[in-house]
Amino acid sequence: MKKYIPEDTIKRLPVYLRNLLNMKKMGEKIISSKKITLSLNILPEQFRKDLSYFGTFGKRGVGYEVDKLIKILEKIIGIDKEIKVILVGVGRLGSALIKFKGFSILNMKIVYAFDNDPEKIGKLIDDIKIEDINQMDKFIKKEKIKVGIITVPASSAQEVAEKMVKSGIKAILNFAPTILNLPKDIYVNYVDMASELGSLIFKLKNL
Amino acid sequence: MKKYIPEDTIKRLPVYLRNLLNMKKMGEKIISSKKITLSLNILPEQFRKDLSYFGTFGKRGVGYEVDKLIKILEKIIGIDKEIKVILVGVGRLGSALIKFKGFSILNMKIVYAFDNDPEKIGKLIDDIKIEDINQMDKFIKKEKIKVGIITVPASSAQEVAEKMVKSGIKAILNFAPTILNLPKDIYVNYVDMASELGSLIFKLKNL
Repeated sequence: MKKYIPEDTIKRLPVYLRNLLNMKKMGEKIISSKKITLSLNILPEQFRKDLSYFGTFGKRGVGYEVDKLIKILEKIIGIDKEIKVILVGVGRLGSALIKFKGFSILNMKIVYAFDNDPEKIGKLIDDIKIEDINQMDKFIKKEKIKVGIITVPASSAQEVAEKMVKSGIKAILNFAPTILNLPKDIYVNYVDMASELGSLIFKLKNL
Repeated sequence: MKKYIPEDTIKRLPVYLRNLLNMKKMGEKIISSKKITLSLNILPEQFRKDLSYFGTFGKRGVGYEVDKLIKILEKIIGIDKEIKVILVGVGRLGSALIKFKGFSILNMKIVYAFDNDPEKIGKLIDDIKIEDINQMDKFIKKEKIKVGIITVPASSAQEVAEKMVKSGIKAILNFAPTILNLPKDIYVNYVDMASELGSLIFKLKNL
């Protein structure tokens, strides 16, 4: 797949999939684009346009087979098989993410967590043992892991990201409130909680 | 202010401010747009354009007074005085957010936290006592709080959001992996961690 796909479309794919998984749980077998998008505040046309980047699915006037569309979306996103993820920085947020159930719904699992604090190394969070950051390279290479989460303080995020990339990580979800300078072929998404809250306040005060 | 300001510009304002606060800490007094944006992977032109929505600041060929620009940005965003925020859902993520230091840097403070679990109500996290969700209305009205954070499971997010809005909340940062249906005049930002991770994996597999 080489054609241009809008960032917003990409971000909506997991949202559609999660919604379909919920609907499957509620016993839905066949579903219309209207019903899929109803609870998402998204227009049915938008959903159909997003899907159209990847082919033609569903039957006009009938709808989508829920099971089939789930498989298709899992395949499109690349999570038809479980994706192993590492996490660096087992503070409060890191611990919360290790225990977070929302990743496994989408077939993504934090399999290793790392820290540099001797008091944390060796401890268990759920079934994940906290490993020494200096051993990270070995773990990443052993399982050919490509995806990492950063939950260290801003001051050490760049160093941690470079270490990850050196070991073979290609995509990073960064929670540290700082921008990472990495090679162009590394994908980075940012979750910046203070900036999200700040921008809400801006709107409240100004718009 | 009534003119159109792009969403991306709004989201960058707190990022600029946080960067300036860091630079102030490092002793910077006067700073160029190049230096402000260097560590942010943003073009200096973009920074100047973003600022231009709000007036003319800085001196051509000289730069910006750090202290002055911090005050201006705080005023623009609306955080020149501390903004009180409530949080509902004191699970792992909620607890991590209560302890998160990144909000206070931007003059935002979680002042009350609520839950419906009798085992949690009355307990302290840092200096925040967990209150009964059924008492929320009283706390919001007493202090005229306008901003709320939701960290409950997806299944109860809509109900919690409606309760918040009924009590006077006007802006919500929602971490629950679900879309909220609220009146048009309520601002909602979403932090969807699984969707962020999923979209990264999509890029890794497809682009």
